[in-house]
Amino acid sequence: MIKAGIIGSTGYAGGELVRILMGHKDVEIKWYGSRSYIDKRYADVYRNMFQIVDAVCMDDNMEALADEVDVIFTATPQGLCASLVSEEILSKVKIVDLSADFRIKDVNIYEEWYKIKHPAPQFIEEAVYGLCEVNREAIRNARLIANPGCYPTCSFLSVYPLAKEGLIDMNTIIIDAKSGTSGAGRGAKTDNLYCEVNENIKAYGVAGHRHTPEIEEQLGYASGENTTINFTPHLVPMNRGILVTAYASLKKETNYEAIKAVYDKYYDNEKFVRVLDKDVCPQTKWVEGSNYVDVNFKIDPRTNRIIMMGAMDNLVKGAAGQAVQNMNLMFGLPETEGLNLVPMFP
Amino acid sequence: MIKAGIIGSTGYAGGELVRILMGHKDVEIKWYGSRSYIDKRYADVYRNMFQIVDAVCMDDNMEALADEVDVIFTATPQGLCASLVSEEILSKVKIVDLSADFRIKDVNIYEEWYKIKHPAPQFIEEAVYGLCEVNREAIRNARLIANPGCYPTCSFLSVYPLAKEGLIDMNTIIIDAKSGTSGAGRGAKTDNLYCEVNENIKAYGVAGHRHTPEIEEQLGYASGENTTINFTPHLVPMNRGILVTAYASLKKETNYEAIKAVYDKYYDNEKFVRVLDKDVCPQTKWVEGSNYVDVNFKIDPRTNRIIMMGAMDNLVKGAAGQAVQNMNLMFGLPETEGLNLVPMFP
Amino acid sequence: MIKAGIIGSTGYAGGELVRILMGHKDVEIKWYGSRSYIDKRYADVYRNMFQIVDAVCMDDNMEALADEVDVIFTATPQGLCASLVSEEILSKVKIVDLSADFRIKDVNIYEEWYKIKHPAPQFIEEAVYGLCEVNREAIRNARLIANPGCYPTCSFLSVYPLAKEGLIDMNTIIIDAKSGTSGAGRGAKTDNLYCEVNENIKAYGVAGHRHTPEIEEQLGYASGENTTINFTPHLVPMNRGILVTAYASLKKETNYEAIKAVYDKYYDNEKFVRVLDKDVCPQTKWVEGSNYVDVNFKIDPRTNRIIMMGAMDNLVKGAAGQAVQNMNLMFGLPETEGLNLVPMFP
Amino acid sequence: MIKAGIIGSTGYAGGELVRILMGHKDVEIKWYGSRSYIDKRYADVYRNMFQIVDAVCMDDNMEALADEVDVIFTATPQGLCASLVSEEILSKVKIVDLSADFRIKDVNIYEEWYKIKHPAPQFIEEAVYGLCEVNREAIRNARLIANPGCYPTCSFLSVYPLAKEGLIDMNTIIIDAKSGTSGAGRGAKTDNLYCEVNENIKAYGVAGHRHTPEIEEQLGYASGENTTINFTPHLVPMNRGILVTAYASLKKETNYEAIKAVYDKYYDNEKFVRVLDKDVCPQTKWVEGSNYVDVNFKIDPRTNRIIMMGAMDNLVKGAAGQAVQNMNLMFGLPETEGLNLVPMFP
Repeated sequence: MIKAGIIGSTGYAGGELVRILMGHKDVEIKWYGSRSYIDKRYADVYRNMFQIVDAVCMDDNMEALADEVDVIFTATPQGLCASLVSEEILSKVKIVDLSADFRIKDVNIYEEWYKIKHPAPQFIEEAVYGLCEVNREAIRNARLIANPGCYPTCSFLSVYPLAKEGLIDMNTIIIDAKSGTSGAGRGAKTDNLYCEVNENIKAYGVAGHRHTPEIEEQLGYASGENTTINFTPHLVPMNRGILVTAYASLKKETNYEAIKAVYDKYYDNEKFVRVLDKDVCPQTKWVEGSNYVDVNFKIDPRTNRIIMMGAMDNLVKGAAGQAVQNMNLMFGLPETEGLNLVPMFP
Repeated sequence: MIKAGIIGSTGYAGGELVRILMGHKDVEIKWYGSRSYIDKRYADVYRNMFQIVDAVCMDDNMEALADEVDVIFTATPQGLCASLVSEEILSKVKIVDLSADFRIKDVNIYEEWYKIKHPAPQFIEEAVYGLCEVNREAIRNARLIANPGCYPTCSFLSVYPLAKEGLIDMNTIIIDAKSGTSGAGRGAKTDNLYCEVNENIKAYGVAGHRHTPEIEEQLGYASGENTTINFTPHLVPMNRGILVTAYASLKKETNYEAIKAVYDKYYDNEKFVRVLDKDVCPQTKWVEGSNYVDVNFKIDPRTNRIIMMGAMDNLVKGAAGQAVQNMNLMFGLPETEGLNLVPMFP
Repeated sequence: MIKAGIIGSTGYAGGELVRILMGHKDVEIKWYGSRSYIDKRYADVYRNMFQIVDAVCMDDNMEALADEVDVIFTATPQGLCASLVSEEILSKVKIVDLSADFRIKDVNIYEEWYKIKHPAPQFIEEAVYGLCEVNREAIRNARLIANPGCYPTCSFLSVYPLAKEGLIDMNTIIIDAKSGTSGAGRGAKTDNLYCEVNENIKAYGVAGHRHTPEIEEQLGYASGENTTINFTPHLVPMNRGILVTAYASLKKETNYEAIKAVYDKYYDNEKFVRVLDKDVCPQTKWVEGSNYVDVNFKIDPRTNRIIMMGAMDNLVKGAAGQAVQNMNLMFGLPETEGLNLVPMFP
Repeated sequence: MIKAGIIGSTGYAGGELVRILMGHKDVEIKWYGSRSYIDKRYADVYRNMFQIVDAVCMDDNMEALADEVDVIFTATPQGLCASLVSEEILSKVKIVDLSADFRIKDVNIYEEWYKIKHPAPQFIEEAVYGLCEVNREAIRNARLIANPGCYPTCSFLSVYPLAKEGLIDMNTIIIDAKSGTSGAGRGAKTDNLYCEVNENIKAYGVAGHRHTPEIEEQLGYASGENTTINFTPHLVPMNRGILVTAYASLKKETNYEAIKAVYDKYYDNEKFVRVLDKDVCPQTKWVEGSNYVDVNFKIDPRTNRIIMMGAMDNLVKGAAGQAVQNMNLMFGLPETEGLNLVPMFP
């Protein structure tokens, strides 16, 4: 039985991690960390867990935790995980960090976009970007995983095969993304009140969202080219789900079958990426509650662009589900263990 | 491996049954019946099932089905199951009927409220009302289960302990219920369009809803008294969930602890009924996607009434989950098999 | 031109008052009070008002305000209006108080339910309960109006004709109410976040909500009997709207036509109360954005109870619209001036 | 008093036209046409109109109508208006056609995208594209107005100043649009059921939506260049509202002030187009129920692209409001008559 600790267990991603791990036969949660709710029963914070979780919330003590558990998940604000991690801790325990601290290899870019000084740049190189479909082997051997961001996971997986195969002009990529409101977190802000979000849609962080450099870096690795994109997130009145609509110019004329073959080449053996049938557009509802990313594409011969689409549950494949997928790989378990979640509809 | 067939697999309850059975280790679905979608791939009707279900939809042939499977679920309009069932079929296969055909023991009451002639009254007596928390032993030995209605399940379980113990005046019961829109089914009606339901709430079927006699009959069995109630359902702009707020006059003065003890007496050992902590009101979101019913109560000393509350996922404990719970009992499996679904929040 | 000042203009009720007064040809808003946003442009708080309102928010100075305006609306937390009002102020300006400070005639009941000491009990007697359909004449001559609560307005108007005519047993009244989330205000609380409210319904304040004694007092006046009721509010995932479902025992057998005649007697000449056609249930969406209350009823001969229903926009007839209706009466304007708002659908 | 007739008065756009015209002091609706609801009371189809509209629905008889009214609004499926119009009718009455029949000047393009033969191509040239902010003078003198589509209105007004001034590369334009569900109409289709749309977002009509050529044609006129774009609409779980996020490459380096000046040049005197303050992103909720379009932009120096945004109520400025604006111009009324609708929030 793998013993797990969660730092930041009372945010939405932390709560989802608890939900998923409750159904994982090889894991036991030993530590529900939550600085805001110390000594409060976890089930009083998330009442869906009544009679399921008996534990009370603990403080964020990573050193104590490292002695008690086999794996630590950090679902915390930027900078926190990096400020706590140390060589000693990493020698005792594996860490899956759901924050952005170790996602970006160039510390200057991290500090520029996140406006904070990186507290532990010495671990950036070692950290593995936890996108299982791309870095599976490195993940198996990692001590420290940078669990990808929600928007980057969906954006990257939608575009990846074409970037990797050199079929699109990397400097024409525009990613227009739409997210449910759980992505904004559980903090009590006026902007996230029901009445402000409901019956409303808006763009935010236009030309400045912090997931931009993360997507660019990963697309750069895939294509072998420096990549600069436009990325525009939108807030949608729904709890869960991210939909990505990405645009790029095709380098040369092509057709449906050729592009489909490329997607299949990369995803045919990937359980969690479903390439939909021709002309079927991904919908967030079809993946809700599951670890799937549904992708598809459409060629527009009039403009010679390709429209790439992806849909995902931001709290599962975009956060907690992917974290468990990474943990499974790190501990030599079947990659899908605990993740055979059938999407809930309606 | 139990072989299961579903007649009516493409309604919302049928779809939920498929979702739950996909996670049930002892069951295999052999027949996806759907008169509306014969020969269409099931995953084209419910795209959440893409790459999960490969089957195509079949016609409703209960005789053929009875030779192929061990259990048939009928998630069909009133009258259909009763028109298909026969002694020969029941000798070969167990049936869990999610329609109302066999729920009401008095055929006259059935015919009066449902406005149809009952096609097979000879099986009414044999059929067991599938509320596991009450009729567990009878269910184990049943061939034919009348799976309870969504409103009746939530209403009855909220009131049951007090009715059974004779603590409330049965003729003062008023049940004000609120349901998500999946309860209205997947038929294409103007009233159920997004724009008509969203940002709206209404009562419907006031003083005439067909779940009324079902609730009355069950409360009558529990209390040993003829029971006539007011039942008012409301349509709420959400996909899933039923909330029941029930009112009754207390026969004599009492207090929180005494009533709590009564609820605990009936539900302490029931995994799927959670009696919440004092002053915590049930919320549908806390049970979404799970087989739980959350119940609680509040005494109003000013009026000497008790307010009983219950929250449930109408498609799970109110339909498909309860059907699986019944099936587990009928086949001697652990009652919770396939039903360890943790509620999804948010 | 009537000059108006609003104290508490940046809550949802205050914002709605601004929206309505913008379309009122005889009123000009001179003071946008908001303690939380002093010196901030009003249109930066409510961007729907961009290029419509140019003013900045001011502090809550009722004395200064009394010299500048003809009418003050207070849309503020309990206790504030009462702590600011004085004989001198009332000699200069009319006040419509949207808080509960002057709604309840018995100061002990106010203090018991609101858990605060009343700061100005000397004005309670003078204050007129601003339900225009009932107290029209008194309102015309009032200096101080207690604008009714949202739940009480909808509850009372649904039950009023039958209470007044002595047709129902006043001690059997149960009011089950459902409100959109704008009723919970614009304060940043976790419970009111989008993800907590969406796809969810719950009761709250069961057997203890502060609108209970207000409803009881008004029903007492109407019926001439001491009245104790059960009142249960629920939070519904929608922005606006209150639906009331009220139950009472009929004193004697009656029929649809007789009861319809009673409703018509009271409401035939009331523009803002619409008695719907037989068997049509009120829906909140049909009154959204307007000052209407839609009411109807259903007799249940099985239980000899009557179910009375009402639907209303909580921010209009339940707050700002009713306040303007009161103001119109106080200033001798046509009662409907500025209130010819056609409900918006969908 | 202008007498108006509406053909197709029971669709959502027709209903909104009724709502707006109820508040227009110079117009009286004489004919509520609705082929689906002939002889049914209008207020039984849209119950928000109870006690407001007394009329019953009439058949679609444009010839009879032309003798009775001064202006006809057609809010009907493609092809219907064109099949009814004639020189004789146009000699008697003005027509504002809310369908696409006369929007596209090149009949071949119309027939290619709409897959129908145009029934009256002889009137295409005469018809004026009713975007008041651009074609104001021509509209004043028109007999036949092609009221713009919802997506084209919001898309075009967001991009227009930059296209007109030659500041963007017209072949780089990508428009990613998001619409509330009322845009899908009131037809009873499974895809538009509450449970299918709620908690869901999807793209549709990718690379093939029929509003594409309309946007292209108008942008072509503005820029003087043949323009081919990508246009991707999305369905969002909300009733009303369109949000446009448009991308284009800037022809040369520029800055905020320069671009702001260009927007102001075109929109400073336009009441219904609001150029928001720097860094404020349009939100659909801020314009709900009103005739405003809120626009803004953001320059991305990293990619040398500009992101143009627009938010609008699809049923008002995107349909009925714009139709009334056109009517006002045609009849020499103040352009804003009946359209001083303050956005409703929340």
